[in-house]
Amino acid sequence: MDGRRALDHLVVLDLTRVVAGPYCTMLLGDLGATVIKIENPAGGDDTRSYAPYRNGSSMYFANINRNKKSVTLNLKSPEGREIFRSLVKKADIVVENYRPGVMEKLGLGYDELKKLNERIIYGSVTGFGVRGPYSKRPGYDILSQAMGGLMSITGQPDDPPTRAGNAMGDVLGGLNLTVGILAALHERTETGKGKRVDIALLDCVIASLDSATQRYFSDGKVPERIGNRYAPCAPYDVFSAKDGKIVIACGNQHLFELLCTRVMKKPGLLTDERFRVMEDRVRNQGELKEIIEGWLSDYGASEMVEILLENGIPAGPINDLKDITEDEHIVKYRKMFVEVEHPKIGKMKINGCAVKFLDDESLSFEPAPLLGENNKEILSGFLGMDEYILDEYKEKGIL
Amino acid sequence: MDGRRALDHLVVLDLTRVVAGPYCTMLLGDLGATVIKIENPAGGDDTRSYAPYRNGSSMYFANINRNKKSVTLNLKSPEGREIFRSLVKKADIVVENYRPGVMEKLGLGYDELKKLNERIIYGSVTGFGVRGPYSKRPGYDILSQAMGGLMSITGQPDDPPTRAGNAMGDVLGGLNLTVGILAALHERTETGKGKRVDIALLDCVIASLDSATQRYFSDGKVPERIGNRYAPCAPYDVFSAKDGKIVIACGNQHLFELLCTRVMKKPGLLTDERFRVMEDRVRNQGELKEIIEGWLSDYGASEMVEILLENGIPAGPINDLKDITEDEHIVKYRKMFVEVEHPKIGKMKINGCAVKFLDDESLSFEPAPLLGENNKEILSGFLGMDEYILDEYKEKGIL
Repeated sequence: MDGRRALDHLVVLDLTRVVAGPYCTMLLGDLGATVIKIENPAGGDDTRSYAPYRNGSSMYFANINRNKKSVTLNLKSPEGREIFRSLVKKADIVVENYRPGVMEKLGLGYDELKKLNERIIYGSVTGFGVRGPYSKRPGYDILSQAMGGLMSITGQPDDPPTRAGNAMGDVLGGLNLTVGILAALHERTETGKGKRVDIALLDCVIASLDSATQRYFSDGKVPERIGNRYAPCAPYDVFSAKDGKIVIACGNQHLFELLCTRVMKKPGLLTDERFRVMEDRVRNQGELKEIIEGWLSDYGASEMVEILLENGIPAGPINDLKDITEDEHIVKYRKMFVEVEHPKIGKMKINGCAVKFLDDESLSFEPAPLLGENNKEILSGFLGMDEYILDEYKEKGIL
Repeated sequence: MDGRRALDHLVVLDLTRVVAGPYCTMLLGDLGATVIKIENPAGGDDTRSYAPYRNGSSMYFANINRNKKSVTLNLKSPEGREIFRSLVKKADIVVENYRPGVMEKLGLGYDELKKLNERIIYGSVTGFGVRGPYSKRPGYDILSQAMGGLMSITGQPDDPPTRAGNAMGDVLGGLNLTVGILAALHERTETGKGKRVDIALLDCVIASLDSATQRYFSDGKVPERIGNRYAPCAPYDVFSAKDGKIVIACGNQHLFELLCTRVMKKPGLLTDERFRVMEDRVRNQGELKEIIEGWLSDYGASEMVEILLENGIPAGPINDLKDITEDEHIVKYRKMFVEVEHPKIGKMKINGCAVKFLDDESLSFEPAPLLGENNKEILSGFLGMDEYILDEYKEKGIL
């Protein structure tokens, strides 16, 4: 209630570009850390040129880089590297998503940086991790979704392998990286020493498959695309009503009993040998779906969602992106879209933060920085460099 | 190298069931915390009955509950609640995924628990969060994917809305909850006080959409399903070769130039006004895809992946779940499938951990516990209860 944020007082040097790394440093910034985004003076982060744009500025970039400060630094120049080393001495965390070996070539690998500051926590996220035959391969979200098996189980039964419609591998990478960094931060309170976190998008996608690989291990059959149903449960799927589709999710026996007795008024299904226990229902889910849709075809979608919920059965609509931006629960109560005033874009809405604390009004959102916007504040104010040198360095392309 | 793990010495009381909460406590356990899974004596976690099974035990449960200890406790009995309160006094973290209000009704809400231990960190993950009109609704993964907009942008263009083929909402919930808990843990080192983390699956899915909502905000057009391509980049998609499909991901101008000149030998594309810069290529991605697939149809998929990678262009195969369990990089170097000896299932492979530290050989995996397996160890050994009381309580259904 006092405006304090969980990660206040932490300083993060952020060398990341595109999505996976910036998603991590976005979270760290949202939670209160001072995130210094270090960008090359020749254009900065690739996503500064990603669509969509407004007033010539990327809204893509602006969304994921709120709550960060931008400092330009040419790490290929000796002066740029020296400034970076000075920053490392005053920072808690370095985050980067270059291919393995790039930081070492610059003389800025973890082994060098920890000599400057043994408390530094060094987080990297790459496509494939820092060791092994694929380690030097370039990594992009779609590759992690494809090579990590997620696409092979996503899609309707007759579809080709399908990617989740967002950059899910990158988002998972950013989240796992944040977990690793914060765990290392805890360890540092006991040991006084930082460590290096090594996150691979490929690992993150595989870990997210959860129990799907167990199905393969159990019987040797390779799981395929099964549309919207979920292998361990039924009925747990999308069902067609008179005027649209809804979700009904009976994750246990009790919920199925409520559905049959209270809403469908078909108690006979409970003693039907095809549907008696979860295993039966999963085996005969096609027949069960026909019965449910036969009954549901008499009812409107939103009417039936209400009735199902009133009777304690998990159900809901399928929202598109317009729907979510207009939903009172999402917008007003969960604050998942917040307005900021961006210096070029103007008033814009960005995503809220999913990591929330109760009774905590401290979440705040500063707009994404222009390229090099905070050079003076950080290099002169925080690091103590003379301002005339900043001008000189800018002319030389170092800043 | 000393076998120390990042979260050693932390004690977690884990009241979670199914996936979202257990994914969080799995991570905490993998990272070294002592996770005490508290289950109702009448069967425990729902997923103990989820397919697939071996020797009558759920492999689903065993995968996500490794590195945890199981204690049975009937929280509806006064004795059970009293034991829980005693555990809270000695613990660092409580994690639960009941519907909002359930813990309060038991007299075990955060406000009560912090009176017992002001350092306790209380993490909850629910479908919709603890406030707002949907807060009391039951939450399941598929509902978060449907209501959070993810399904509306996942799938081939002619498909209905499609869920990611795993329990992605739950996994995102577990990851965001872990981030919130670890951030609160950091704050506790400065304030001496815990706090309550409030994670909603719905929020987590919306936050994962990343820039997709910016597309809607930019022009008011509701984003639809576009198969495997990615709205901000092209070529960045799945392409058909002679004998199968591969991914090619040109995330910036330089990579597209390499593709045209070094591999496709079609430098003319670079000056073709349809494809000159990223914005052009995104607008004309259908035509570009035809050109690429026309060229690619002369080559085998795995042959061309090799050639593309040799020339610095991000590319890869599309793996199914069998492929990932046999890939040397994934299995040997990233250790994403590890063998444990489960007391009932026997030797089994479970997912490895995606949160890794470099040069850290400390990751270890204990098999998931049988229901109540650690009652004596925790209640008598850790909490100091007399063993004869444990027997009495077990007979009474308290344990």
